[in-house]
Amino acid sequence: MSTQSPDIKLLFEPRTLAVIGASHDPNKIGYKIVQNIVSNGYGGRVFPVNPKGGEILGLRVYRSVRDIPEAVDVALIVVPAKAVFQTVQECAAHGVKFVPIISSGFSEVGNLEEERKIVTYARAHGMRVLGPNIFGLYSVTPSLNASFGPREIPKGNVAIVTQSGALGVAMIGKAAADKMGLSAIISVGNKADIDEADLLEYLMPHRETRVILIYIEGVKNGDQLVRALKRASKEKPIVVIKAGRSRRGAIAAASHTGSLAGTTEVFDAIMKQCGVLRAESIQEAFNWCKFLATSVLPQGVETVIITNGGGIGVIATDACEKYSVELYDDLQILEKIFSPVTPEFGSTKNPIDLTGQATAEHYRRALEAALHNDAIHSVIALYAETALFDIASFEPMIKDSFNAFQAQGKPIVFSALGGEKIGQLTETLRHHGIPLFADVTEAVSCLGALYAHSRYRSRAEELPESIQIDASALERIVENARREHRGFLLAHEAQQLLRIAHIPVPRSAIAHTLDEAVRYADEIGYPVVLKVVSRDILHKSDVGGVALDLDNPQEVADAYGAILHNCRAYKPNAVIDGIEVSQQASPGTQIIIGARRDPSFGPILMVGLGGIYVEVMKDVSFRALPISRQDALDMLKELKSYPLLLGVRGEEKRDIETVIDVLLRVGSLLLASEGISDIEINPLIVYEQGRGGIAVDARVLLVLGG
Amino acid sequence: MSTQSPDIKLLFEPRTLAVIGASHDPNKIGYKIVQNIVSNGYGGRVFPVNPKGGEILGLRVYRSVRDIPEAVDVALIVVPAKAVFQTVQECAAHGVKFVPIISSGFSEVGNLEEERKIVTYARAHGMRVLGPNIFGLYSVTPSLNASFGPREIPKGNVAIVTQSGALGVAMIGKAAADKMGLSAIISVGNKADIDEADLLEYLMPHRETRVILIYIEGVKNGDQLVRALKRASKEKPIVVIKAGRSRRGAIAAASHTGSLAGTTEVFDAIMKQCGVLRAESIQEAFNWCKFLATSVLPQGVETVIITNGGGIGVIATDACEKYSVELYDDLQILEKIFSPVTPEFGSTKNPIDLTGQATAEHYRRALEAALHNDAIHSVIALYAETALFDIASFEPMIKDSFNAFQAQGKPIVFSALGGEKIGQLTETLRHHGIPLFADVTEAVSCLGALYAHSRYRSRAEELPESIQIDASALERIVENARREHRGFLLAHEAQQLLRIAHIPVPRSAIAHTLDEAVRYADEIGYPVVLKVVSRDILHKSDVGGVALDLDNPQEVADAYGAILHNCRAYKPNAVIDGIEVSQQASPGTQIIIGARRDPSFGPILMVGLGGIYVEVMKDVSFRALPISRQDALDMLKELKSYPLLLGVRGEEKRDIETVIDVLLRVGSLLLASEGISDIEINPLIVYEQGRGGIAVDARVLLVLGG
Repeated sequence: MSTQSPDIKLLFEPRTLAVIGASHDPNKIGYKIVQNIVSNGYGGRVFPVNPKGGEILGLRVYRSVRDIPEAVDVALIVVPAKAVFQTVQECAAHGVKFVPIISSGFSEVGNLEEERKIVTYARAHGMRVLGPNIFGLYSVTPSLNASFGPREIPKGNVAIVTQSGALGVAMIGKAAADKMGLSAIISVGNKADIDEADLLEYLMPHRETRVILIYIEGVKNGDQLVRALKRASKEKPIVVIKAGRSRRGAIAAASHTGSLAGTTEVFDAIMKQCGVLRAESIQEAFNWCKFLATSVLPQGVETVIITNGGGIGVIATDACEKYSVELYDDLQILEKIFSPVTPEFGSTKNPIDLTGQATAEHYRRALEAALHNDAIHSVIALYAETALFDIASFEPMIKDSFNAFQAQGKPIVFSALGGEKIGQLTETLRHHGIPLFADVTEAVSCLGALYAHSRYRSRAEELPESIQIDASALERIVENARREHRGFLLAHEAQQLLRIAHIPVPRSAIAHTLDEAVRYADEIGYPVVLKVVSRDILHKSDVGGVALDLDNPQEVADAYGAILHNCRAYKPNAVIDGIEVSQQASPGTQIIIGARRDPSFGPILMVGLGGIYVEVMKDVSFRALPISRQDALDMLKELKSYPLLLGVRGEEKRDIETVIDVLLRVGSLLLASEGISDIEINPLIVYEQGRGGIAVDARVLLVLGG
Repeated sequence: MSTQSPDIKLLFEPRTLAVIGASHDPNKIGYKIVQNIVSNGYGGRVFPVNPKGGEILGLRVYRSVRDIPEAVDVALIVVPAKAVFQTVQECAAHGVKFVPIISSGFSEVGNLEEERKIVTYARAHGMRVLGPNIFGLYSVTPSLNASFGPREIPKGNVAIVTQSGALGVAMIGKAAADKMGLSAIISVGNKADIDEADLLEYLMPHRETRVILIYIEGVKNGDQLVRALKRASKEKPIVVIKAGRSRRGAIAAASHTGSLAGTTEVFDAIMKQCGVLRAESIQEAFNWCKFLATSVLPQGVETVIITNGGGIGVIATDACEKYSVELYDDLQILEKIFSPVTPEFGSTKNPIDLTGQATAEHYRRALEAALHNDAIHSVIALYAETALFDIASFEPMIKDSFNAFQAQGKPIVFSALGGEKIGQLTETLRHHGIPLFADVTEAVSCLGALYAHSRYRSRAEELPESIQIDASALERIVENARREHRGFLLAHEAQQLLRIAHIPVPRSAIAHTLDEAVRYADEIGYPVVLKVVSRDILHKSDVGGVALDLDNPQEVADAYGAILHNCRAYKPNAVIDGIEVSQQASPGTQIIIGARRDPSFGPILMVGLGGIYVEVMKDVSFRALPISRQDALDMLKELKSYPLLLGVRGEEKRDIETVIDVLLRVGSLLLASEGISDIEINPLIVYEQGRGGIAVDARVLLVLGG
């Protein structure tokens, strides 16, 4: 018995398959699954298991998995929840590698304990669990339909991973109706063990899969997911539908699959970081998948719109801006390319307007002109139905153009608006695997998705930057706080933490006498701040325990006396450990930097401009850690308030390099110690370019019970 | 001959109709139009006009409009552009009331002059012009299809007004394919005369029209449009597709119809103010129209989602938040209503989950429960296809439920996700006028549109608030500046303008001697600001012509001398009119208020928080003038930075009433004088609630050449 994890490939391409809980009753799921497996022509051996024995669909039924005469790669479990654990034990004893548990009645109804017990046992015995609470899986490579979903699944190049079983089944139906072929569909259900990250390992190199569609409600092991998505997005487009985005939706999702839905902003930021294409609806996801599964990648950014109507051309132009599709705008070259093929009263500006008189032949010639010119890298071809519409000539024109563009490596997206005949054309082209979109905006959004994927792929691979941290020094601070049963660091400890990461903090020292205070102030340089150090005095400012703007020795001496006096008056028994003398940072631009362990995604980093910008305007950006230097800059650029760092109203540019540096260092700090849960620097004051910055205040929380 | 405008109703419901340029050639537009009119069974008399005479489709052809033996209400003009003017003259001579000019070749190709000449002539002779550059119009009331679009137009309750002819023709096709019946469709083309506002006059009370869909690229006479939309939105939902939203799209639109596309932000804000539903795409607009044309209005806000799958329930919940649909959440009452009709393992929380085992009968009972409970005001019914799907039982269930909900006055929207059979069901229901949406998000967006319309309808009618302004005092200031050929007001004139509207400004006086300066300062109260008054010195601060923070008579005296010295040193010959002594406003929250004449919408008002919030964060809101007190408050609430006025971080609430008051006054100022083009107060400093505010600086521009 091995506790090594089996190769995930076996789950999709098993040599042998058992269905435990196979049923003789055609109305039962346990029958349906066997039926689907058999009727899809799965090439491996199938072993139905049922204590009653007998035969199902011509297959011998075994009374127990133990009776099966050979090794079993995958055993689907369809028995009632309370019998699952014993079944899993039997599977383990028989050397089964994967157990997809179809049965429900686990964490989704609050029965988390049983689910955990099953997974712990399975993992300890070298088995992996898919589910529970799933409809099964489908895989095109061995033509395996091990699900109780539809019998016929259209073969193709889109793989679907779905957290909702019912939605998955309905999506198979929709895919069939839309002629969107599937290469695999996997129901992950409660994700007690196998999750999206595991499945991506298989789907990433899978030849038949060109696009991966993931329906996700909650994230578990987000850091693994992030790593998997980042790698997979470099290989093929990944489209994600995230449900449970709203506060209310998150509650609904939690009661549905028992997993915590992360906050929308964090999720969106991290998906973007991973190069994932987030769709707003099922329809949008399907549109994108249909297009991405058939399209080649663009060789450049220049797009032209070819249309027969000004109105749809304008709508497409708007959509190009919305979906970041760049329109080619060299008017001279456009005229050179398109004037020979544009009818009178048309326009060779982009959109190229072939006018309402345009026939299929006009389109053919205009598309050929675009195809053969290297300045143009992709085409949006639009048609608004006119009285001239002739389905007999448009169908071959679109087919020929589509094929020619594919061959040349230029993406092309088609959209046609009109009546029944356009519907027929759409249907016919669908059978040839050519998507024709009824809505202009949807068509452009597909090309936008392709370009977003293409940009991520071609982004220079930059390694995350890890700053060397003295881990033992860090642990000493954390351990010390723990010994004192504190869940947080004291101010000077937090400052020490920052110093370990070489983050600039104000110079400071703790004085125990008036003379010391003045000497330290002289050494530090004026102005200075004085602050009482005492665990007995919490709100130091309120009781007169803090003095700011001290410009010379005399003011330091006066303040020293006043603070002591105030504190003694406030609490005569307070133990006063000294008076902290520190450098007073001069004013500058305030930045807030936070790092924390997100319940979904693990270590994440946040940045925003200080004060109002974060609190009121919610102007912050997020990344999953670790990040590269480029990521850190991107985080800043995503802020609406970024222009303030570049300098507005004639102000000088701020020291952006320092902000990036502190971001990388704060991220590295969090990653360097498992004991830290939160680090917040508020504010980091930054000065003009080249003049650095200073972390004036920091708050550090520790992992509870760690 | 009357120059009175004819009733717009005649355009839609003419008693007699001429087609000037009617053709004998079935391939020509001039034939197609006659054919469409005849074949749609128009009940009035039709007079084709063509110099050749003869007969078209059995109708006698007149050689000239002058030969027609009776009065002609509407004469469609289909002659070449260069012959249009003469034709219009003939129509005028014959007493024609409306001339839809199908012909193109006018402002859309730069020929603005001819277009203007035609309209001016027509208007002077009591005629109105539709177009030019249109495909015609269709009206269900007299069954009139006076267009060269499709012959068959499905009858129904959606009216379309389109600026793009080609798009309009294609939309007719799409409407037919989607079984979305039309009550009217009007192509407005170049909008040389008749525009959307005129057409709304007819469509607003039009019984057959339940929803109005407007495709618009550019706005002309925006203030009329705003008034018309505001009124019409109180009667029926108005859905707008605005093209030319992007910078690039606006250029494309301009070259297409020659009208200026307004900036997106202003357009969006004003549409919202008018209660208009702005769709993001043609598909979205069609979805909304289909639903709105069939749905009753809700009697309250509480919505329940009824579903058979958790996943689509979660997606719908998210969509409810996105589209502002409120979900009923009294769990006890929900349980009471739905537990009798929910299968085991289902959920009576909202979404109500009938589980994957749900049949049509389960749905029927759950929908009935929702229908008969007064706590629930609308329903979203979702279905994810399962193996149990039975089209024969779902079709009557949906039909019965839809009818029962209509009868009870409760909106219900249906969505079903799945394969071919769901497609068939959708098609069948379509024939019964019941929309079934394939996409959950789209279904919810429809209900969201209905609620947005319902909220606007039920919004208390608040009259715009106009502040009494001394118009003659205002004109004196404007006239004075004009006499001096200035396009702007001087600082003290602008201040005087604000005083006329009783907007608080700093107390100030112009001193000509040192004694005067000190006396004024004493009267005004310290601190004061001194500033040189001289047209010869532009950048007063730079040359030492300004002194701030003067706290006592001695500092005023010193500053007075220094300013004179500095100015003389800078420019010995400068004419110095005096030294302005003014109250120095104490610090507070800075607000920017602007009013200007927008090229599309006429007088508009803008507000934002001072400095960075407007400049960097682009956090501003707009309204078309005039506005009510409630509108002014709404403008502030739309600002992301609004919490700063409410008080954050323990600060006190700001004097919001003062901001509202100044907004109303600035708006009234702009409306009170045609001579003013721009007023900007920057900053208006506001203090804590009850402490008012002060307009520190104002810039006023005048209408050029006025």
